[in-house]
Amino acid sequence: MAKLYIVGIGSGKREDLTIRALECIDASKVIVGYTHYIKLIEDLLTGKEVYQTPMKSEVERCRAAIKYVREGLDTAIVSSGDPGLYGMAGLILELDSSIDIEVVPGISAAFLAAASLGAPLMHDFCTISLSDLLTPWEVIEKRLESAALGDFVIALYNPKSHSRVTNMERAIEIISKYRSPKTPVGIVKNARRDGEVKTITTLENINYDDIDMLTTVIIGNSNTFIKDGYIITPRGYNI
Amino acid sequence: MAKLYIVGIGSGKREDLTIRALECIDASKVIVGYTHYIKLIEDLLTGKEVYQTPMKSEVERCRAAIKYVREGLDTAIVSSGDPGLYGMAGLILELDSSIDIEVVPGISAAFLAAASLGAPLMHDFCTISLSDLLTPWEVIEKRLESAALGDFVIALYNPKSHSRVTNMERAIEIISKYRSPKTPVGIVKNARRDGEVKTITTLENINYDDIDMLTTVIIGNSNTFIKDGYIITPRGYNI
Repeated sequence: MAKLYIVGIGSGKREDLTIRALECIDASKVIVGYTHYIKLIEDLLTGKEVYQTPMKSEVERCRAAIKYVREGLDTAIVSSGDPGLYGMAGLILELDSSIDIEVVPGISAAFLAAASLGAPLMHDFCTISLSDLLTPWEVIEKRLESAALGDFVIALYNPKSHSRVTNMERAIEIISKYRSPKTPVGIVKNARRDGEVKTITTLENINYDDIDMLTTVIIGNSNTFIKDGYIITPRGYNI
Repeated sequence: MAKLYIVGIGSGKREDLTIRALECIDASKVIVGYTHYIKLIEDLLTGKEVYQTPMKSEVERCRAAIKYVREGLDTAIVSSGDPGLYGMAGLILELDSSIDIEVVPGISAAFLAAASLGAPLMHDFCTISLSDLLTPWEVIEKRLESAALGDFVIALYNPKSHSRVTNMERAIEIISKYRSPKTPVGIVKNARRDGEVKTITTLENINYDDIDMLTTVIIGNSNTFIKDGYIITPRGYNI
């Protein structure tokens, strides 16, 4: 029976792929993915059938991948970052949990951005997606409140799109109720990809024009500081 | 000038290393790490100087790595998972941010465990370390309360050690104030390593004997469900 590999490709740059991700792409006859991510790994896809769809057709994409496997073709469905966080693993399993699957973990955007910023995560942290396409905005607000209250380092995914331009400003407004305006903030666009743009600033000085759909924003906790161009959240070692 | 690579090795199995992690280990003359993690990659270390220390000597280990670099030797300090989450990146930068460093991201334990469980993360999630060696227990309790209140999927790191046997039970007591006793829980020991042991259960049925220092515990949110031996947190697609 054929197998479905649900593969995280991290940034999409070869250096951020794991050995297992490469093996599974290599072993697959068909590669399924969002057009933009397929483009990032196109040099790996010679001789393979490629099924690509634009954004917002996730369900169609997953159904196609399952169909290829049911027809006997080993298939990889690729997500940027990790497929188990805002990726395709859940949707595949919701649609069909009886085929042979393997989830291949990848480096999620918070970790890609963090590596470029120094060490902003380090301690207890959370991810919050600001996309209200699939999640009611009240749920997102409640998560922002709770995360700020708990003094988590916060990584914001999908901070802005063409249709959602104010979610990011509203999120910062909520977090600012609980945190100093001097709290370090790291903004990384295209983390670890060609054309990466990185900004280190503070809650009170965020320039919202620095932020788009390909950006990850990391907000420090009450102990996070900036030093020599790095954002550092101390773990608590006595040094 | 020599360079310090701060490298995440994921599970430590070759398949979970990224291409960049392999390149940086290969390029280093000296490898520094906790004895247990060095053992996981020892086949990569032929001909290299290895500086290893037992647990709880993190500061000594980081100082040693910095010293090697200052002596002109390219050095890699390795952490399991990602070096920027409960790893060595922060401590290195706190000690010395003037040497040439590169943080190489790796797959953190929550993602390794999630890949084995199906798709338990998928939506907004947080990590909380239950180790109170460096963090006051009151701070940990506050984070548990906030994360439960915000309906985050929760990944618990360092759930138990010889000296901390009741933290895990107390954590579950707190989370249970906010979540149904039927909430799915995944317990993965040695995720994606040889001898992995995986248990899928519910909040009310956790067997604390399944949990030790090498275990990651993932607790679902209010929508998480179990299906055909997988834990799945839906993203919210209409299917």
